[in-house]
Amino acid sequence: MSSDTNTEAQKKLIDLAADFYDQFDRGEIPEMTLPTRTKTNIEYDEDSDVWVYGDRESTRSANSIRGARKLLKAAYTIEFLDNQLEEDRSSTLRELYYLSESWDSEEAQFSTQDESNQLIEDLEIVSDVRREDFHMRPEESGAKVMGPLLLREQTRRGDRDIHCQKDVGQGGYQIPNNPDTIEFLECDADFVLSVETGGMRDRLVENGFDDEYNAIVVHLGGQPARATRRLMKRFHDELGLPVTVFTDADPWSYRIYGSVAYGSIKSAHLSEYLATPEAQFIGLRPEDIVEYDLPTDPLSDSDINALESELEDPRFQTDYWKEQIEIQLDIGKKSEQQALASRGLDFVTDTYLPVRLEEMGII
Amino acid sequence: MSSDTNTEAQKKLIDLAADFYDQFDRGEIPEMTLPTRTKTNIEYDEDSDVWVYGDRESTRSANSIRGARKLLKAAYTIEFLDNQLEEDRSSTLRELYYLSESWDSEEAQFSTQDESNQLIEDLEIVSDVRREDFHMRPEESGAKVMGPLLLREQTRRGDRDIHCQKDVGQGGYQIPNNPDTIEFLECDADFVLSVETGGMRDRLVENGFDDEYNAIVVHLGGQPARATRRLMKRFHDELGLPVTVFTDADPWSYRIYGSVAYGSIKSAHLSEYLATPEAQFIGLRPEDIVEYDLPTDPLSDSDINALESELEDPRFQTDYWKEQIEIQLDIGKKSEQQALASRGLDFVTDTYLPVRLEEMGII
Repeated sequence: MSSDTNTEAQKKLIDLAADFYDQFDRGEIPEMTLPTRTKTNIEYDEDSDVWVYGDRESTRSANSIRGARKLLKAAYTIEFLDNQLEEDRSSTLRELYYLSESWDSEEAQFSTQDESNQLIEDLEIVSDVRREDFHMRPEESGAKVMGPLLLREQTRRGDRDIHCQKDVGQGGYQIPNNPDTIEFLECDADFVLSVETGGMRDRLVENGFDDEYNAIVVHLGGQPARATRRLMKRFHDELGLPVTVFTDADPWSYRIYGSVAYGSIKSAHLSEYLATPEAQFIGLRPEDIVEYDLPTDPLSDSDINALESELEDPRFQTDYWKEQIEIQLDIGKKSEQQALASRGLDFVTDTYLPVRLEEMGII
Repeated sequence: MSSDTNTEAQKKLIDLAADFYDQFDRGEIPEMTLPTRTKTNIEYDEDSDVWVYGDRESTRSANSIRGARKLLKAAYTIEFLDNQLEEDRSSTLRELYYLSESWDSEEAQFSTQDESNQLIEDLEIVSDVRREDFHMRPEESGAKVMGPLLLREQTRRGDRDIHCQKDVGQGGYQIPNNPDTIEFLECDADFVLSVETGGMRDRLVENGFDDEYNAIVVHLGGQPARATRRLMKRFHDELGLPVTVFTDADPWSYRIYGSVAYGSIKSAHLSEYLATPEAQFIGLRPEDIVEYDLPTDPLSDSDINALESELEDPRFQTDYWKEQIEIQLDIGKKSEQQALASRGLDFVTDTYLPVRLEEMGII
């Protein structure tokens, strides 16, 4: 949000456009080189402890009409972003797509939103500037926070000091699109518990779990938005809090944990900014289904395929995950986190979570 | 939230169970009678100006095993709700479904979540108590508010006074699951503008539309939750504010408007509590697509079917909607609200909305 960040991002964008110019000037065909973005080209980075792109690269070259058009679109988009930063404004990916209709060159206009989304990701990667610093907003943030934390959010209308228990309603504090506008003022929390579903989040808040255990309860709302993942990383790195992830016991939920802890294939270039490799999976584990005899649904074919593909996924190559996934394939069942209610509404806060947190050495 | 409301709801529930008892006592086969819940059985109520159920009724009778099981489940659920209200607690629909596994009679346990959801709706209808007053929470609320309004929310941890511009971040104020816990303290707003997409909501907030036009901007987030519809109705009825609805120009979005203004078929028994018949559709209208030459997508077959079914829907039997739907079928195109960005990022706040609000006599 600060104008220093704006100037830095503008400079990196203009440098990219200048590269095209220099290539032309040297009589070369302009091109842009990017890491190949597929599962086989992500690898573990031992320094940062997250998954990043490997060495394979793809080139966007103006040696074909299709390639030339891509570079033209990049040049127009760079100009748009430069203006946006100059005026300290922001926009959504969808607005960028529509706005391109007003550009004077028809060749530069995007034909689908996938195309403009992908170009922004490309620009993030080659410029090493994050989308948030281009002032591109996501369509939705959605996640909310409840816990013993006083923060200051820098908004367009001035600073707001907000305590995430005392100054908010039952709904909690809504994470802004760019959580780097938040400064932490005072924190009495001992750990972060992030929760997949709204129903379970509300259960924890109703039962006063955040208060009794000094926990920051974060609602993930399914696959978490970038803003949510970024804020959890900051909770870990800046406040030194252990981060835990509480989801359903099914393969899609393990991917939610995976994206918090290891980053995603689509945004492996952002892993160091978004991923919290120290994040721990608190449950539901397939072994909990057995231990607590929880209500289940049978695994569907697509669940089984997803589990098998996770056994191959470099992010799940640990003894822990192999064991859990094999238990699940073996029992052929999945459970939702709210299935803990079959043992009573307070079982999750009185028994399940305290037992797991103690096992994990967090309380 | 007050214990008076709890006692009232408990009494009505117990009355229902007492009815079953009295029927047994008189040597009758117990039964429960409900209005039939289909599109052909909703009709316009001239007194309340909303759509309500007609005269056709369905009966759940214990004269079959299937029917007897339904009444048994109702009796167990009534006992659960009575305890929940006694302890001033709450739960989600999904928790109720799982919790039934702990009931001593296996016959009373729900076999699918649809079954428990439907039973709660049945109980709402026959007892004339709303789900919120049973303390059944939805899985998600999601909607948020930004505007010149000071409110007091009664939470489990005490009252919270929150100004929906000065005391919140960019994300705004998160509507709680039961908005009847909110008291309005001070309102400087002139009207309510509810918005379908998060991207457009963020655009209005970034451009300061709520501040410049004294508007309460409500994010609908697709089909609005009950809590959001209830709060908008209270803005209208208690604060005397005109309510407007701003969506994409496609048949699914008109249904969003329809559910705000006229209620939905599924919850026609709640129309007087949830619907705001005075709510006005601000756009995008099919005629705006033509007038502003907006970027479009072609109507799909399912879009066309949905428009044709709207022409038959009693809620859309007005000259205005017939004209707009016929224009749309004629041009064969739809647009998103963010397509207004093709005329520049400020077009929506500088031109489109002020023009429409003036035409509608709101500003």
